[in-house]
Amino acid sequence: RTQAAMEESTSRTTKKKLVAVVGGGLVGSLNACFFAKRGFDVEVFEIREDIRKAKVVRGRSINLALSHRGRQALKHVGIEEKIVSQGIPMQARMIHSLNGKQYPIPYGRKGQVSLSVNNIATFSYYAIYSYPNTKLNFDHKLQDWSTETGLMTFVRPDGSKVQIKADLIVGCDGAFSATRKQFLRRSRFNYSQTYIPHGYMELTMPPVNGEFAMKPNYLHIWPRNTFMMIALPNLDRTFTCTLFMPFEDFEKITTGDEVIKFFQKYFPDTIPLIGVDALKRDYFRLPAQAMVSVKCSPYHIDDKCVLMGDAAHAVVPFYGQGMNAGFEDCIVFDEMMEQFNEDFSAVLPEYSRVRVPDDHAIADLAMYNYIEMRAHVNSKWFLFRKHVDNLLHFLMPKTIIPLYTMVTFTRTRYHEAVQRWHWQNKVINRGLLMSVSGAVLGGSYLLIKSPPNITNLLIPGEKIWSRLTELRTS
Amino acid sequence: RTQAAMEESTSRTTKKKLVAVVGGGLVGSLNACFFAKRGFDVEVFEIREDIRKAKVVRGRSINLALSHRGRQALKHVGIEEKIVSQGIPMQARMIHSLNGKQYPIPYGRKGQVSLSVNNIATFSYYAIYSYPNTKLNFDHKLQDWSTETGLMTFVRPDGSKVQIKADLIVGCDGAFSATRKQFLRRSRFNYSQTYIPHGYMELTMPPVNGEFAMKPNYLHIWPRNTFMMIALPNLDRTFTCTLFMPFEDFEKITTGDEVIKFFQKYFPDTIPLIGVDALKRDYFRLPAQAMVSVKCSPYHIDDKCVLMGDAAHAVVPFYGQGMNAGFEDCIVFDEMMEQFNEDFSAVLPEYSRVRVPDDHAIADLAMYNYIEMRAHVNSKWFLFRKHVDNLLHFLMPKTIIPLYTMVTFTRTRYHEAVQRWHWQNKVINRGLLMSVSGAVLGGSYLLIKSPPNITNLLIPGEKIWSRLTELRTS
Repeated sequence: RTQAAMEESTSRTTKKKLVAVVGGGLVGSLNACFFAKRGFDVEVFEIREDIRKAKVVRGRSINLALSHRGRQALKHVGIEEKIVSQGIPMQARMIHSLNGKQYPIPYGRKGQVSLSVNNIATFSYYAIYSYPNTKLNFDHKLQDWSTETGLMTFVRPDGSKVQIKADLIVGCDGAFSATRKQFLRRSRFNYSQTYIPHGYMELTMPPVNGEFAMKPNYLHIWPRNTFMMIALPNLDRTFTCTLFMPFEDFEKITTGDEVIKFFQKYFPDTIPLIGVDALKRDYFRLPAQAMVSVKCSPYHIDDKCVLMGDAAHAVVPFYGQGMNAGFEDCIVFDEMMEQFNEDFSAVLPEYSRVRVPDDHAIADLAMYNYIEMRAHVNSKWFLFRKHVDNLLHFLMPKTIIPLYTMVTFTRTRYHEAVQRWHWQNKVINRGLLMSVSGAVLGGSYLLIKSPPNITNLLIPGEKIWSRLTELRTS
Repeated sequence: RTQAAMEESTSRTTKKKLVAVVGGGLVGSLNACFFAKRGFDVEVFEIREDIRKAKVVRGRSINLALSHRGRQALKHVGIEEKIVSQGIPMQARMIHSLNGKQYPIPYGRKGQVSLSVNNIATFSYYAIYSYPNTKLNFDHKLQDWSTETGLMTFVRPDGSKVQIKADLIVGCDGAFSATRKQFLRRSRFNYSQTYIPHGYMELTMPPVNGEFAMKPNYLHIWPRNTFMMIALPNLDRTFTCTLFMPFEDFEKITTGDEVIKFFQKYFPDTIPLIGVDALKRDYFRLPAQAMVSVKCSPYHIDDKCVLMGDAAHAVVPFYGQGMNAGFEDCIVFDEMMEQFNEDFSAVLPEYSRVRVPDDHAIADLAMYNYIEMRAHVNSKWFLFRKHVDNLLHFLMPKTIIPLYTMVTFTRTRYHEAVQRWHWQNKVINRGLLMSVSGAVLGGSYLLIKSPPNITNLLIPGEKIWSRLTELRTS
């Protein structure tokens, strides 16, 4: 501790700047490590009590999919391996049909896996304490802060107030960010919050004879068009099943028997695995939870404050990128700190400029995948296109890269991934259309006597086009 | 006043319900008349002092375009004629080219005019006082209200507080509504505020020899692609010119000489009319003002509160529908009050359900017109399509109705107008494409020797298509 204290004193002399991280969740606690590593004084302010002391709060999602972007950020502060060793690799989606049949849809190439993880914040907390110039403050609720002076006011559970003046305030306090309120009072701050019509409910699938009840290394999906269920494996060999469904459908089910009837109709294979009694009980434990997508711009106020993670861009959970995007925020910010020599007045505007389009892109993709996961995976066109994409990726690995691969297994900027995806789709769809049209037109030509009837020639092409469009939108 | 007092007492006995209208602007004051006409006790709470006593605040838009929807609402409470007689009819847009040439683009058929109006709220105030059961409260700032009890707390300029309990709270307090804050605290409230990159600045064009400096019965437009200026006539024979331009361009101009240089380059015909000295002075009087588009949903909380006007749907000013949409809100709500026998618990959800898609549609249209007005009106395709649309409307007045006509001169629901517009565009564009393609294919056929080369046949069609697309997006 002596050495640490010395380091701390050196650091304070050279930097002197205090970074206040509001929110000690996944992104806040990781971000604190990034700032601490740079030698800043860092204080984290968390509204809840220390989660390491708290009882586990059930019914809210605790397992998450960790992929490339998130891992890169964890690696930067030296906790990647620890967390990966605690995660369960998921190598593919496993689709459950109504008739109980299962078939996998791979994510990408071999070895490209997402990890089902939880408790990352706990690891970050220990990492934070490995830096001398840091402090974790629990039970601190941000009441207000001044854009002029950076003075922050927190309320403690006993009603007392604490004030602290920070050089930089980093708002990582989630989708309902208190830090963000100050942004909303200013002119020219763009903001949107969109609730989707679906809610979610979590159910637990216990182990069978001490083993996972289903194949563990998959993200299990029961796509049912207007709703779906997914299941992610946990270290304790349970699965957390999450049912996503329109609120009005949740509300239609009011008795235990109706729950069973509903599951018999749509998820019959899960009834013996979750258990009839557990289903009847757990369905009514908590009401379905809402999901919100938040977008805003800019992410900063002057050189005083920056929003990151869900506070800047809460996304719906259907691309498994919420946490990964938040973690990548930390890398991107850190890269700019390097580039602009830790000058907040240069870093903050640049961060907004660069990061906003990427976060908006992943928010849109998550919303899009919400339809794809529950409906498109049932469509023949979708599966056909997945095969075509994978084949082309295999043949031309640098030219055609499936969107999912770019998003999940690379650090290609989200908005560039989307642009590239549109371009690829155009090329591939045109290629498909031309192949088919060419074949049909060629065939038609052979059938035509002279003189050729131009109108007839055009009809088959139109029919193919409309059939492809139909497939595509089915 | 005795009779009025009697009526009031009768009314209180039968209805007893107090409607509190927050905001005494255009929509709030008109809405108060609607509720008063139904016999409710109505109190209006306005944050500002009585505008009839206030000095005119210059530099913020005071003239507005009144069209069909707004007039219908005014008619309902008997003040249409008064206001129309004070307005100046605008029969067409007048486009000013860079070279100083002017040409009109008509809005619709003869007699279909918008009116440049102002001071409507003043008329509404007098109308409000013609009902016995009403009260206007100025200098009342809404601090908070309870969704449980409907208890509202207002702050007076001297810091004192006033509390009042209303049966229904009608939030007409504008784009930055204080009433809406309570909505934002609730789950599943969708909200977005979007600032456009353009700001606006108002300049006055004085009369010349006591007469209007330009033709008065037009909305004058100087479209310059990335920016534009418009001018609306006022009763005192001045024009209010509004310059819309990206903030960064406003900020580039820092001296009086630069203002003149800029106007010489882009609006040379206006310099003698506004005056060199006035230009140099007025450009720097106020910084450019921001414009925001607000969308939200739902518009109500239980049977306690409903948002209307800008509080529910602030739009950018480029379709001239902001006020008209707010006034139409009053009619739509009133129609539902009739339909559901003034049962707030039925009227409020139905109002949200029906009105949200229409308000979102006009918000989107206003945003779209922001591009059309400054850029498309310069495009040949745009003018060509206007002519085609007007011709088709003339030939088939019930089948093809230009969008502008539906929005401005009918009460066709906004979202239905948009749907119909998309359908019409599809039909018209296809018709145009088929005519052209048919002609070209026919021509090509004549040129082809046997055997016909199918590929060559297809190329002209594609070229025409891409040319049309090019024109369309130019």
